[in-house]
Amino acid sequence: MMTSIEESPLYSIANPKSLAFFGASNNLTAMGTNLLLSVQALGFEGPIYPVHPKSDTVLGLKAFQSIDDVPIIPDLAVIVLPTAIVNNTLEACGKRGLRNAIVVSGGFKEGGEEGRLRELELTDIIQRYGICLLGPNCLGVTNPHQRLNTTFIPYEGPPGFIGLASQSGSLITQLFEHLFMMGWGFSTAFSVGNEAVVDVVDCMEYLAVCPHTRVIGLYIEGIRRGARFIETARRIVPHKPIVALYVGGSEAGRRAGFSHTGAMAGSDRLYEGLFRQSGIIRARSVTELFDFCGVLGSQPLPRGARVLIQTHSGGPGAAAADACGRAGLEVPLLSPEALEALAPFVPNTGSVQNPVDLTFTKNPLDFYSKIPQVLAGDRNTDTLLVYFMTPSQVVARGMRWMGVPEDQIAKEGAKMMDDQCRSFMEAVQPSGKPLVGFTFRGHHEPSIQGLTRRGVPVFPGPERAARSVAAMVQYAEFRKKWTAPQACKDA
Amino acid sequence: MMTSIEESPLYSIANPKSLAFFGASNNLTAMGTNLLLSVQALGFEGPIYPVHPKSDTVLGLKAFQSIDDVPIIPDLAVIVLPTAIVNNTLEACGKRGLRNAIVVSGGFKEGGEEGRLRELELTDIIQRYGICLLGPNCLGVTNPHQRLNTTFIPYEGPPGFIGLASQSGSLITQLFEHLFMMGWGFSTAFSVGNEAVVDVVDCMEYLAVCPHTRVIGLYIEGIRRGARFIETARRIVPHKPIVALYVGGSEAGRRAGFSHTGAMAGSDRLYEGLFRQSGIIRARSVTELFDFCGVLGSQPLPRGARVLIQTHSGGPGAAAADACGRAGLEVPLLSPEALEALAPFVPNTGSVQNPVDLTFTKNPLDFYSKIPQVLAGDRNTDTLLVYFMTPSQVVARGMRWMGVPEDQIAKEGAKMMDDQCRSFMEAVQPSGKPLVGFTFRGHHEPSIQGLTRRGVPVFPGPERAARSVAAMVQYAEFRKKWTAPQACKDA
Repeated sequence: MMTSIEESPLYSIANPKSLAFFGASNNLTAMGTNLLLSVQALGFEGPIYPVHPKSDTVLGLKAFQSIDDVPIIPDLAVIVLPTAIVNNTLEACGKRGLRNAIVVSGGFKEGGEEGRLRELELTDIIQRYGICLLGPNCLGVTNPHQRLNTTFIPYEGPPGFIGLASQSGSLITQLFEHLFMMGWGFSTAFSVGNEAVVDVVDCMEYLAVCPHTRVIGLYIEGIRRGARFIETARRIVPHKPIVALYVGGSEAGRRAGFSHTGAMAGSDRLYEGLFRQSGIIRARSVTELFDFCGVLGSQPLPRGARVLIQTHSGGPGAAAADACGRAGLEVPLLSPEALEALAPFVPNTGSVQNPVDLTFTKNPLDFYSKIPQVLAGDRNTDTLLVYFMTPSQVVARGMRWMGVPEDQIAKEGAKMMDDQCRSFMEAVQPSGKPLVGFTFRGHHEPSIQGLTRRGVPVFPGPERAARSVAAMVQYAEFRKKWTAPQACKDA
Repeated sequence: MMTSIEESPLYSIANPKSLAFFGASNNLTAMGTNLLLSVQALGFEGPIYPVHPKSDTVLGLKAFQSIDDVPIIPDLAVIVLPTAIVNNTLEACGKRGLRNAIVVSGGFKEGGEEGRLRELELTDIIQRYGICLLGPNCLGVTNPHQRLNTTFIPYEGPPGFIGLASQSGSLITQLFEHLFMMGWGFSTAFSVGNEAVVDVVDCMEYLAVCPHTRVIGLYIEGIRRGARFIETARRIVPHKPIVALYVGGSEAGRRAGFSHTGAMAGSDRLYEGLFRQSGIIRARSVTELFDFCGVLGSQPLPRGARVLIQTHSGGPGAAAADACGRAGLEVPLLSPEALEALAPFVPNTGSVQNPVDLTFTKNPLDFYSKIPQVLAGDRNTDTLLVYFMTPSQVVARGMRWMGVPEDQIAKEGAKMMDDQCRSFMEAVQPSGKPLVGFTFRGHHEPSIQGLTRRGVPVFPGPERAARSVAAMVQYAEFRKKWTAPQACKDA
């Protein structure tokens, strides 16, 4: 097993110091142009050498007629050319001495007999030159920690902790904003495409030792190396959680996968067993894939399945309790000590059963400090699940009432909400227990952003929150089982 | 069965011409003050008479020391007073001749033996005076078509088509923005609280004849009048769909419900049977409750379970196919005629299997006009499910490229996306088939707003979309079965 990413054959694909770029032009309708714009938008710091048969410059960069004209041997070639000229270009790169390439172009194994033969030719070339290849028919790589993003959409938000190996490039590039809204981001994401060389297993091995990656996500339409996949996962899971989404289980999903990347899918039950054997948490949807990654990468592991729900509204509390029950979690009563400590803060309309429903409290500040402190400290609790709901218009109403000048209301309100979020975090963190929120407000709300920015996942609705907590519990159990000391020999 | 809302005992609660308001003051920490501010914020057009023992004015309105001083008999009293003085106030209202009241205050049946006795006294008063009462322990009513909203949070967005009877007031007022983001809104929503008089069944009867209500949603912690509930639902369902969420099925949900509104919950299986007998679509979460209402109220009914998926990205397409399969929908191949009509618009990297994956097309406009027109017209299709993803930053990139001045990019981009949305609608609407979208972008995107504003639900992720389509299919089957003509007597 590798001990650092520098040992990985994928190192220069994810961390190139220089790029050769084929297929970008000054024409925005070309796919390659868009990808190079994404590279530039994230501020890639190394030199970029566009190769173009006619233009002297491409997107403001000096262009070269052929790879032979490029003054150095770039670390990585990104190829976004018409299918027919990809193999020749790859061969030219090999001759020039390049040893890493991403082929974005499609029209290979996924595209009939002609494509299959073309992919055979491609694998022959890369074997001859010893090229490490990502693709073909992929979107390349996103490594925001290195300011690298070869995908279609510019990267949004700060670098993150989710490592992804995906048989869909769209589910990298088109998820940037989705992750950003939840307070998450990619550490490094690989779009593996047809997996002519680099496959999901290689990416798992890289991500296992990537220091920015706290959790590994997999989007799978079909696995080629089953035994190696299981073996690799079993080595990783005791140290880093793996979450996988498999979409080939239904007939329609299987057909879609084949026409997409030529993947041969197996039955749902086969993959269910494969994931279970491997200690992999299974997600049932794209949303769950990233939800599970988000909580596993941001929260401490719960010691058990007991969830305490904090709310100021009965309906959302009951819905959360119901969602926890359906997700297989426990919603136990509070300990006598917690009940006693809580008593001063609960109005007579409230409830100290679980959910703890504070209703309309006289001092809303308690909701953000003393109450969560007591609840997180409760010995009957493994995870705190909290309903958050502070519409900025209601805050503005209060500010206006207190005489805050109209032009300062937005700023003062945002500051107040930010203080509350910080206070909440400070109240819970000493417990070392996971904190997960839910809301029905939008993520644009300052009261929600103040939490997501501090690493607290706030889900739209309790169901996604509950299922994510259940995923953490499942991983904690895997980990306990797999890292348990062997039966003591002296006994 | 009633034929118009005017015949309903709830008419003046949902459509009062004047209000007496108890418990609002000039102090924002009082619950009542917040509710009156919500009433004012929506621009209630009738006279409002705050009753306050000391203040001459309340929130800028002339106040009255007692209900006897109010110059007219208001249509509706809203009471948000301390528990101990609610019953006396209600009695005073009765004496004065008021016949409709909302009691927001809690501390009745849901609050122990003392509360139970207090609620008995309350029912005695309302029976003596013939008062129609909503509550106690509720948030009242939201009827944006009449500019009435007695709940905590100001109403957001235009009046809508979802009628709701809810045993949680929070799940009305705290969902305003959630619905608005999806392009939906309430027609009239009732928070029934402890149901001392008006219960969920009464609200269903009202909403059945409410002309603004296209679909009825129910949030249920426990039903009191089971037989009447089934009978009422069975009368409504052939004409208007009903969707229900029951949260008492798990032990934790049951406990939460009891401490919330004193509801006696039954087993999950009991309610499953009850909903099935009644022809009610069952939602499993708050999100599903409103998703199902949203599609049923905005889309024509599908004739069957066959879904055609349009995408320009393989992964989201495969995930959508998988989600449809899991939701029990069919994802059939296209008809030969549709395949032929589609051929000119599909690039060689694309796929015309279902999902129809257009990939990176040369003419993106086809995605919004000719392609959906062909797909919606396909005889193998009952519903069109479309993946939408146009990040405004990518549009801006294109605009900048075309030389659009920087200060016009946002406006021109928004206009272009709006045109595309209109074009899409015009292409699909003649088919009379449902159109449902999904995306991983936020709802703030102009390309998404252009659709939601036109009544197309665009879900975050394919799973919610697929389950919502399945709910439409289920309702269409109920309706076909229940409105089928009896076996022909002449045969």
